Amino acid sequence: MNNKKIYTIYGINNAEAVLKSDSCIIKDIFLDTNIPSDSKIKKLISEYNFSNPVRNLNDYLRLNNSRDEKRRLQGVVITFNFRGIQDSISNFLGQKQDNNCVLILDQLEDPQNLGQIIRTCECAGVNKIILTQNKSVKISDSVLQVSQGAFCNISFYVCNNLRNTLKILKEEDYWLVALENSIESKNWYEIDLKGNIGIILGSEGKGIRRLTLEDSDFKATIPMQGDMNSLNVSATCSTILFERLRQIMND
Amino acid sequence: MNNKKIYTIYGINNAEAVLKSDSCIIKDIFLDTNIPSDSKIKKLISEYNFSNPVRNLNDYLRLNNSRDEKRRLQGVVITFNFRGIQDSISNFLGQKQDNNCVLILDQLEDPQNLGQIIRTCECAGVNKIILTQNKSVKISDSVLQVSQGAFCNISFYVCNNLRNTLKILKEEDYWLVALENSIESKNWYEIDLKGNIGIILGSEGKGIRRLTLEDSDFKATIPMQGDMNSLNVSATCSTILFERLRQIMND
Repeated sequence: MNNKKIYTIYGINNAEAVLKSDSCIIKDIFLDTNIPSDSKIKKLISEYNFSNPVRNLNDYLRLNNSRDEKRRLQGVVITFNFRGIQDSISNFLGQKQDNNCVLILDQLEDPQNLGQIIRTCECAGVNKIILTQNKSVKISDSVLQVSQGAFCNISFYVCNNLRNTLKILKEEDYWLVALENSIESKNWYEIDLKGNIGIILGSEGKGIRRLTLEDSDFKATIPMQGDMNSLNVSATCSTILFERLRQIMND
Repeated sequence: MNNKKIYTIYGINNAEAVLKSDSCIIKDIFLDTNIPSDSKIKKLISEYNFSNPVRNLNDYLRLNNSRDEKRRLQGVVITFNFRGIQDSISNFLGQKQDNNCVLILDQLEDPQNLGQIIRTCECAGVNKIILTQNKSVKISDSVLQVSQGAFCNISFYVCNNLRNTLKILKEEDYWLVALENSIESKNWYEIDLKGNIGIILGSEGKGIRRLTLEDSDFKATIPMQGDMNSLNVSATCSTILFERLRQIMND
């Protein structure tokens, strides 16, 4: 269902990632005529074996009434279907390898945060993200844009009922770790993050929902060292995902 | 010199932080008349012993021709002098305690990144940030805004000549760690981040300058696990600062 939606991204990083990706079916490429023929992006376009003619970037600007943002677009806009959003949890989970990690976002709200989290996941070797359906940020052009092409290497699953999904993960031998500041929480580095693991992050304002917490096997906290109590959720994400990587590399 | 500049922030988190901070000298408070008298923000204002009358938020909106952003402002705008930017490196460094850490940003460019980095520093117990003067992001209203009040607990120093500043840090027995992907770099967790340490992050596009790298004692890398090579600088910042905290807590 989601696969029919057409997304639009711009800029060199995103365009290169989309051109290289198996999960993006390109509809249209809009290119600035000033881009030199020996540029990497033109090479990738010729290798993509694209059936439609490449269009002039001015067509895109005209269609969208945007004349002054040529510089921001870095000379390229691509529209495409994205097949990285899975219809079923079993397709999503796929074949198990060593150290499977799924990042679970419980009603995350902010597109900027989701884009940054996707980017961090890709860099940290985590290629599976579960989103919730209700009261949650959607996968949108701006989310994909912020991820700087990282979304191409990530598999997504949007679940209606997070409790059911967590139950399935447990049946598949995933341990669930919730990031939550509470008295019962252990320090983030004291929890074994190797093996099959689901890491749960909550929304910016409200954190993780109570029932989601009840379904978790472990609670991890990153104790705040200052007066504020406001570590950004994407900063939390990089802290825990690279702690996981440290444990795996150190093993 | 910087101290004479008047900054403007809005929103509850930022306003509460400014009202509690010794490094902010408040000029004007603009408050929505709908804010209840028993709210935390009104309590903080009465405790601040503010000499000028609190003004109506509508005055601010009128002065700035902005009618529709009342919700975004969360009912409060404060203008103030910020005394957290130090004039000299010795004032900036101050008295040494255990595990002194200075974050050094070599020509960082993006205000959003700087704001997030300030927020992460405060949460990770790092309260000293060095910025470069040229080709670098400036401390601005939007930077302070993004930091969600965290700037109030951070001391800043903006240096003209980073090499001189690094030399002084070395004379003061700081070890300098540069985050840089290169063959000689060690993994980020293999470097001892305890004690007196300066952590250097580079600009979004170009990384750390060559001469800055030459002045560093250690090079640390966070090896990328995916196809992209684009960990955001603020994600890099949280990874290294919480690795430092892990080492200190684990010691």
